[in-house]
Amino acid sequence: MPTTTNEQPWRVHPDRALPADPGVRAIAREILDETAPLPILSMHGHVDAEVLRHDQPFPDPTSLFITPDHYLLRMLVSQGVSLDDLRFPAAGVTEESARAIWRIVSENVRLLRGTPTRYWLEHAFSEVFEVRERLTPESADRIFDHISDRLTTDPYRPRALFDRFGIEILATTDPADATLEHHAHLAADGWGQRVIPTFRPDALLEPSAPAWRGHLDRLASVAQIDTQDYDGFLDAIRARRLSFVEAGARATDHSHAVADTTPLSEGEARRLFTAARAGDIEATEAAAFTGHMLFQMAAMSAADGLVMQVHHGVLRDHDPAAATQYGPNIGFDIPTGMEFTRALRPLLNAYGRDPAFRMIVFTIDESTYSRELAPLAGVYPSLRLGAPWWFLDAPDAMRRFREATTETAGFYNTSGFVDDTRAFCSIPARHDLSRRIDAGYLAELVGQHRLPLDEAIETAIDLAYNLPKASYPPTPGSEYV
Amino acid sequence: MPTTTNEQPWRVHPDRALPADPGVRAIAREILDETAPLPILSMHGHVDAEVLRHDQPFPDPTSLFITPDHYLLRMLVSQGVSLDDLRFPAAGVTEESARAIWRIVSENVRLLRGTPTRYWLEHAFSEVFEVRERLTPESADRIFDHISDRLTTDPYRPRALFDRFGIEILATTDPADATLEHHAHLAADGWGQRVIPTFRPDALLEPSAPAWRGHLDRLASVAQIDTQDYDGFLDAIRARRLSFVEAGARATDHSHAVADTTPLSEGEARRLFTAARAGDIEATEAAAFTGHMLFQMAAMSAADGLVMQVHHGVLRDHDPAAATQYGPNIGFDIPTGMEFTRALRPLLNAYGRDPAFRMIVFTIDESTYSRELAPLAGVYPSLRLGAPWWFLDAPDAMRRFREATTETAGFYNTSGFVDDTRAFCSIPARHDLSRRIDAGYLAELVGQHRLPLDEAIETAIDLAYNLPKASYPPTPGSEYV
Amino acid sequence: MPTTTNEQPWRVHPDRALPADPGVRAIAREILDETAPLPILSMHGHVDAEVLRHDQPFPDPTSLFITPDHYLLRMLVSQGVSLDDLRFPAAGVTEESARAIWRIVSENVRLLRGTPTRYWLEHAFSEVFEVRERLTPESADRIFDHISDRLTTDPYRPRALFDRFGIEILATTDPADATLEHHAHLAADGWGQRVIPTFRPDALLEPSAPAWRGHLDRLASVAQIDTQDYDGFLDAIRARRLSFVEAGARATDHSHAVADTTPLSEGEARRLFTAARAGDIEATEAAAFTGHMLFQMAAMSAADGLVMQVHHGVLRDHDPAAATQYGPNIGFDIPTGMEFTRALRPLLNAYGRDPAFRMIVFTIDESTYSRELAPLAGVYPSLRLGAPWWFLDAPDAMRRFREATTETAGFYNTSGFVDDTRAFCSIPARHDLSRRIDAGYLAELVGQHRLPLDEAIETAIDLAYNLPKASYPPTPGSEYV
Repeated sequence: MPTTTNEQPWRVHPDRALPADPGVRAIAREILDETAPLPILSMHGHVDAEVLRHDQPFPDPTSLFITPDHYLLRMLVSQGVSLDDLRFPAAGVTEESARAIWRIVSENVRLLRGTPTRYWLEHAFSEVFEVRERLTPESADRIFDHISDRLTTDPYRPRALFDRFGIEILATTDPADATLEHHAHLAADGWGQRVIPTFRPDALLEPSAPAWRGHLDRLASVAQIDTQDYDGFLDAIRARRLSFVEAGARATDHSHAVADTTPLSEGEARRLFTAARAGDIEATEAAAFTGHMLFQMAAMSAADGLVMQVHHGVLRDHDPAAATQYGPNIGFDIPTGMEFTRALRPLLNAYGRDPAFRMIVFTIDESTYSRELAPLAGVYPSLRLGAPWWFLDAPDAMRRFREATTETAGFYNTSGFVDDTRAFCSIPARHDLSRRIDAGYLAELVGQHRLPLDEAIETAIDLAYNLPKASYPPTPGSEYV
Repeated sequence: MPTTTNEQPWRVHPDRALPADPGVRAIAREILDETAPLPILSMHGHVDAEVLRHDQPFPDPTSLFITPDHYLLRMLVSQGVSLDDLRFPAAGVTEESARAIWRIVSENVRLLRGTPTRYWLEHAFSEVFEVRERLTPESADRIFDHISDRLTTDPYRPRALFDRFGIEILATTDPADATLEHHAHLAADGWGQRVIPTFRPDALLEPSAPAWRGHLDRLASVAQIDTQDYDGFLDAIRARRLSFVEAGARATDHSHAVADTTPLSEGEARRLFTAARAGDIEATEAAAFTGHMLFQMAAMSAADGLVMQVHHGVLRDHDPAAATQYGPNIGFDIPTGMEFTRALRPLLNAYGRDPAFRMIVFTIDESTYSRELAPLAGVYPSLRLGAPWWFLDAPDAMRRFREATTETAGFYNTSGFVDDTRAFCSIPARHDLSRRIDAGYLAELVGQHRLPLDEAIETAIDLAYNLPKASYPPTPGSEYV
Repeated sequence: MPTTTNEQPWRVHPDRALPADPGVRAIAREILDETAPLPILSMHGHVDAEVLRHDQPFPDPTSLFITPDHYLLRMLVSQGVSLDDLRFPAAGVTEESARAIWRIVSENVRLLRGTPTRYWLEHAFSEVFEVRERLTPESADRIFDHISDRLTTDPYRPRALFDRFGIEILATTDPADATLEHHAHLAADGWGQRVIPTFRPDALLEPSAPAWRGHLDRLASVAQIDTQDYDGFLDAIRARRLSFVEAGARATDHSHAVADTTPLSEGEARRLFTAARAGDIEATEAAAFTGHMLFQMAAMSAADGLVMQVHHGVLRDHDPAAATQYGPNIGFDIPTGMEFTRALRPLLNAYGRDPAFRMIVFTIDESTYSRELAPLAGVYPSLRLGAPWWFLDAPDAMRRFREATTETAGFYNTSGFVDDTRAFCSIPARHDLSRRIDAGYLAELVGQHRLPLDEAIETAIDLAYNLPKASYPPTPGSEYV
């Protein structure tokens, strides 16, 4: 039997995810030492602003780490654990139910080998909660109790962790009809520049969805603008964007099936809107309207300064029965092949060289990195290539991203690191991991004499901090400029 | 000139295909030492059961190594060797003709540099036949004679090699109308649990093929069930599946142009079957019927327990003239781009969470690994991602497979190693190579402090043995459970 | 702050782009030492023959390095530099304008980190012009003056550099209606075997382009054959090909949107030609005609011996407004996803096993490497897989090319290195880089005991010299055979 590499007390290794080659690792270490202390810019998250507004202690380890993490849920489900066993009782969370779910996870940690979920969990356990043993069925209860204890103390309340994590800005994701009341309260507490909203109007742009008309009604209500006709619809969206800008938003976010951005004629757009309002629009027409509206979103961004983020190409709720039974975001969202060269052409022809416009494209289809997105981002000044997204926010995938894009787009046409998490405690882990992978890639360039060390360090700092900062500038209309 | 790295006596290097970095290699070596002695589960092969039934000596080195190996034939053809010069005379094998083909190979070994064919051949020469010099035009005759001599001895007869290779189970691939007589004889010899059939009904599921009606007639004859109408057709397939189960089969195997699994209504399925029976079905209808039948295959698998393997997306006989002149499986099968997210959705929605159903998907389109297959296998409990297939059963490609899939699907949603060979003596070479590449990948994780060594070793053992064993469980109806 | 790795005098590192691992690097070094001195075969370039005919000194560093380099222009544009600031005044080049553009580049060199443009520039500065400091805003003027001085001396005139670079053959790219007068003058100077034309008939094969009829008229004029009807059109093309062959051409070159090669019936081809001549052809018909003509090009190649090169799948002038304002080849050409298995089938079925025919396929869609092109090149004797093209002519991409293709197609079904540059001084840099990457890949195989060193060295020499030489043989009809 092998000698074990684990000795008590357990802790994540200081060289984790750095290159294994001793020479390259030493260079990577030198680079990482410069980026590790930098503040975190978390420009695309799914943490709920309410959590930070009320700053209530997190209730229990399971609510904090397990139930909101679709990466973890899907892995357990994939090996036969029932989602029924991973949910709290309808009556509400109990310590017993939280502990039961926790134990299931402890019995299945082997499933997480080689996955980023493992790194994120271990980082939070080790570096945030000072857990000093590996999670096993045997240690599960002790770790549950250890974390539970910490959660009752002030240093583990949300705002304290926010400070401890070194977060400079956290952007949430909010539907177009959000009242942004939590953000307003945070602003009143002096947190307005630290927690900012992001405008996500997806539900308004898909007119074939059954809930579409309901979303338009809520939009009308929040914006106080009638949305019965197409002009009112656009005006209401513009008004809501302005409210987001005033609340500090720096970006919009869009996720649809395909990337098409072909504008319709005014007349055709009106016709389709009216048909959709009447509940009488066909699937191809609805898709055309979505493409048209994405073009309109670019036009509005060029006017109001919100950075336009697109995350297309995921088939949501692949298993409709699971969605009906357990709801969305439980792991049944599956990517599809993407096409960007033709799809983004209308938008880029109109706004791709407009200094007032900024677009960031994320994808899970890696085949488009070197073929389409790096060539596009490498020439259109308005376009930046987003960090590896979702399933690709992981060590090997982040490395592949740099290898596939740098030679064509360089480092400076990428967004820098952008996390995309629902799990608050994974934010520092994700930024840490990204900085490690970038340090490793840059160290490899240094080790191959493709880049001098001083330039590698400057680049690493840019990727970790300066590029995200520049990619998401304060919006001119914001009071926080 | 460089110093040569080859000194007599030649032998494959004990560290072949392990990482070059000395630190990572030492870890890989430690992992490999644990997996190298494990038995071989060869769950998807194309070796003919008749060879093992009769246990006759292999006739000559060329028949053993060259003529059945489409990897080798295609490489020679690609550089201008005529297939005419790579075939035995119509009158039959002679020593002269075998030796002539052998010499052609010896003159072209440089073509195999960097290919898995080279590793497989060298492994068999070195480790099975104790050849102690490299194959060159000069050594060709000596090696031919050396192997020929061995083949006349008992330790080189098929069953002896089977034992020597450490094969625990060998699954053959058999058409739906196979009588399985060789398997029956093997069972009578006590080999029933060691050599099992696999149910491959491709020819029955493509109603536009000219031979389709002939296949249905043979099916009717073997199953003793009339296949003139759709219900009889399905009943006959069910009956044959049952016969395969009784003979020890654990799986079915399917290979079609696309992955579609959309079921038709009963009425439409009957209509298309009747049209096809009348020889009057259009290409799009035939494709729809194939998709429908793949859905039916899943339904039958959920009922009888046979694991459903799919290997889609290869355009067979790309050069019809070569196929006409020289037959199939000579290297003119070419992959195409694949789509799985939408294609598998109907099947997975119906059976993807059914504990009685197991599906394994293989592909040659690597772009689907991280984009579609790892996300699907990482959530649907019935789905496992098959090992790198065909052209991808090679060191760099196997490494890419782990890098592209592990972070999303983990190790435990993959099938573990599954070979797919027509060349009996390449079985141990292929398993050896796979274990080396997995050891190297795991060692890299250990070297980067992404996984402790003890877990890496456990994972390696699972990938080599426990996962294939669990992926292809004995079928409940089998007498060998 | 880190210790700097740069000490004066600056020079490119002798181990640049070799593997970082010390053991593998030593092997790579040994391999590279054998290939570095080999002559350069530059079989697919865009250098203008006129430059070599007149052998005038290059006017200034900016005209030599910056303005013809779309890689560099696009990177500057992508970060907001205006193309207006990167062009010479309409009145012509002045030292002031050349120096102003040079300074812009010096202020933006950080954008080139990790890109091949950086390596090419640095190689030329360091190894050709003996610049001994890094380009920075501070050093920009000094380096401009240093290079300007050299350019006035005889050793830096085009033919002297051609000799110094060790170029054995340089192939230019020439439209079908080119008079080849510069080549004729070069031949008269005894350079006929060293600078050869390549036949590029793209403009003749796209009948929906507005300029198509104009191109046919020029073809008629140069060929002295009427092109009003289809037969004359084909005859004129054949005649021009013959003129190219006589001028030493070894290849044709083709670049269209898709790879389709489906032949039309004679009648349908005539009908479409006549319609196109009348300006009355639809887009789908025009695409069908292009596919038909590519099939005809293969037929003509099989007859006259010109190697057929295809470089498909780039959407030219993605931003039409930029093209109108600044012209073509400024960086707005964007690749698209490709399909080859079905598209090349008609052509390969007809000519893929014809010993008189040779085709080389280049692509920017890496997903087709292991899926389609390596399997095709690994069986059809007439087909070779071209070197990584355009955006992929870069260290990481070249490495991925070998990793994705070697295991299926081997080394010997690739073309060997083929550069594709408009920048004369980047030719040795590109060949140098390719030899380094191939040495690194081969050294990795040696380090992993997958290939003996002597075979690795032989292979490296073949990739650098013998394979390109064999891939582009002299055409039988040429006077230079």
